[in-house]
Amino acid sequence: MSSPTFDAMWADLEPVGRVGSGGYRRFAWTDEDATLREWFAGECTRRRLDLTEDRVGNQWAWWWDGPGTVDDAVAAGHRGVAVGSHLDSVPDGGAFDGPLGVVSALAAVDELRAAGVRPTVPVAVVSFVDEEGARFGIACAGSRVLTGQLAPGRALALTDADGTTYADALRAAGRDPELLGPDEEALRRVGAFVELHVEQGRALVDLDAPVAVASDIWPHGRWRLDFPGEANHAGTTRLADRRDAMIGYAELVLSARSAAASRGCVATVGKVRVTPGGVNAIPSLVTGWLDARGADEAQVLALVEEVTEGARRHGAEVVRESWTPTTVLDAGLADRLRAVLDRDAAISVPVLGTGAGHDAGILATAGVPSAMLFVRNPTGVSHSPAEHAERDDCHAGVQALADCLRDLVGRGPG
Amino acid sequence: MSSPTFDAMWADLEPVGRVGSGGYRRFAWTDEDATLREWFAGECTRRRLDLTEDRVGNQWAWWWDGPGTVDDAVAAGHRGVAVGSHLDSVPDGGAFDGPLGVVSALAAVDELRAAGVRPTVPVAVVSFVDEEGARFGIACAGSRVLTGQLAPGRALALTDADGTTYADALRAAGRDPELLGPDEEALRRVGAFVELHVEQGRALVDLDAPVAVASDIWPHGRWRLDFPGEANHAGTTRLADRRDAMIGYAELVLSARSAAASRGCVATVGKVRVTPGGVNAIPSLVTGWLDARGADEAQVLALVEEVTEGARRHGAEVVRESWTPTTVLDAGLADRLRAVLDRDAAISVPVLGTGAGHDAGILATAGVPSAMLFVRNPTGVSHSPAEHAERDDCHAGVQALADCLRDLVGRGPG
Repeated sequence: MSSPTFDAMWADLEPVGRVGSGGYRRFAWTDEDATLREWFAGECTRRRLDLTEDRVGNQWAWWWDGPGTVDDAVAAGHRGVAVGSHLDSVPDGGAFDGPLGVVSALAAVDELRAAGVRPTVPVAVVSFVDEEGARFGIACAGSRVLTGQLAPGRALALTDADGTTYADALRAAGRDPELLGPDEEALRRVGAFVELHVEQGRALVDLDAPVAVASDIWPHGRWRLDFPGEANHAGTTRLADRRDAMIGYAELVLSARSAAASRGCVATVGKVRVTPGGVNAIPSLVTGWLDARGADEAQVLALVEEVTEGARRHGAEVVRESWTPTTVLDAGLADRLRAVLDRDAAISVPVLGTGAGHDAGILATAGVPSAMLFVRNPTGVSHSPAEHAERDDCHAGVQALADCLRDLVGRGPG
Repeated sequence: MSSPTFDAMWADLEPVGRVGSGGYRRFAWTDEDATLREWFAGECTRRRLDLTEDRVGNQWAWWWDGPGTVDDAVAAGHRGVAVGSHLDSVPDGGAFDGPLGVVSALAAVDELRAAGVRPTVPVAVVSFVDEEGARFGIACAGSRVLTGQLAPGRALALTDADGTTYADALRAAGRDPELLGPDEEALRRVGAFVELHVEQGRALVDLDAPVAVASDIWPHGRWRLDFPGEANHAGTTRLADRRDAMIGYAELVLSARSAAASRGCVATVGKVRVTPGGVNAIPSLVTGWLDARGADEAQVLALVEEVTEGARRHGAEVVRESWTPTTVLDAGLADRLRAVLDRDAAISVPVLGTGAGHDAGILATAGVPSAMLFVRNPTGVSHSPAEHAERDDCHAGVQALADCLRDLVGRGPG
């Protein structure tokens, strides 16, 4: 198949927030984010979808031609099916992580409408806000607040690298921070959620398949470690007199790698902040962020325990910023999607676990039956300008999502 | 003694550029820097000193009551004596490193004038620009360009953390970058330079002395190391598939410490920059800055060779940003200052080497006989908000500087 509406939307999005590296900087509640929100609203208007926002700012565009309103349908027991993902990015991230799911969802709706499908339950295309946590440090903030997994007070107090609070960022974007909070009403409309996402590894390349269904999301978390030191002159302070915060940080980086290797997990220290940060000043404070994940929850926690114990010997204060246990996506929903996709596929559609967190995992934890589809990534590279998916595979993803959606909601013209 | 003019000037300077930590951020060609330059100009005007700027922006305030102009005196063989230091700071630096020398120089001039001294050669109070290199990465940039030790083209191309070039920073400060360059005319006026500075170690505490004379400045340099990696998702990329730039950086930090310990030197990694810098992104580039110094030049260079060789095995590109061999300050001048100070002191004035670079070292390298005085620092802490000198010791420093200056230029009323 081809999908001209996919291609047109993709071309529209390509320049938004692109930086010199060829990657993207699309952070929550920035000008780039506002442009993306307006773009999404425009696409919804063009399709006569009914755009609503929940109390967090997640955008839900409803397609419902049945009797009454969406809420009437929900009240009558016909809860909606949502498809979508997010539009924000990590620093210098790729074009696909997030937007592929949103654009594919809109294109899948186009596909169903072109085929004359009239849904028996409301359909929403959703664009979650602040999935990456690139600006304020907490991933899936939009879906976490929506579902009550992140307290609004804690979210509002988060600060970005410039010291701007989440509350101030909301105000600057013309929003009222008082409104932020869990939104039972918005959540009640959603009976199932399917998120399509670019694969962030190379499993589909090895399996020679364009699309997979997800099984579960690995347990994963973030820890912040503050290593204390004493600022002093780099030239005049004897080694014996130093309290250099960088030393403990360096040991954290190396111990995280070796502990992950020995426990079959992955661990990353991708962000660091140094005070005062001068070439000729001994650091008085180094803050490092540890990201740890793995298929086995006990091993991940043991890794973190081992690494933070070493850091505490350097006087580090350790704060767990987030922790998500293994998220088992809805097995019934996954089986149903597999059955749909297997009908037409030459080979059985693969089922993959993933080390990445997603809004689908947050919704699943909140009790919304959720599933994911992955689209092949030729290099496996993600969170990088090099992140890629071939156009044919993107179209195959749209087709798969449309087929699944049709099965979940459809009543064909025949 | 007391020095009311010292106290008044110190009180004026205290709030300028002070940040939440209690330390200072006074970086070259910023608004804070402009405030400091205006303050200096105001103090000079109040004293009817003749303020000039060289092609680099260093401020020279001349006191010359003799026949003709300063340049007439220089042409007649009476080159001037300069006293001073700098007003800029490292990030979150202390109040004393730099300003103590400038304020003490002005107060020493006040002291001599109050005593009726009429100098036989011109006297300058100098405030050097951009000594710390906190913004553009090269220490003593003001005196280096002045003396031809840093090419103006290289200086103008330096960038700060925001990507602003030195040239653009000069323009933003209302200056013409074209003018930047060595200034033979300004330098020719200076027959000797004495820089008073807060001590950046604890030697004077142990020796129970308020003031010392410097012998030499240790060899010291800065190296930038760029560790390459490949940006990728922290959750989905197997350890075996990673090229994580942070690993090589962490080994640099630890190897620098151990190599310094084994060679009797000091080495510091106080600044790091990570791309992309997201918690859930494997770093594609980590840049670390190595600062290395020691009493023995060969050991310092061997340390750097050892450490950079290890870094190159991680694919690091190594750039030497600066290197200053051992700077022997003028022995004759130092002996003369010691003789002056010993006259009144209960104990012989100590002579100290130092691991810190200074404008006095740059001028000495350029052939200007230069000397330094150090004022006791009770904790030895420097480049930190905790940097301190007791007020009595500051006054003792003013007295020492005034005594030295009187000896070098003075013809008393008697």
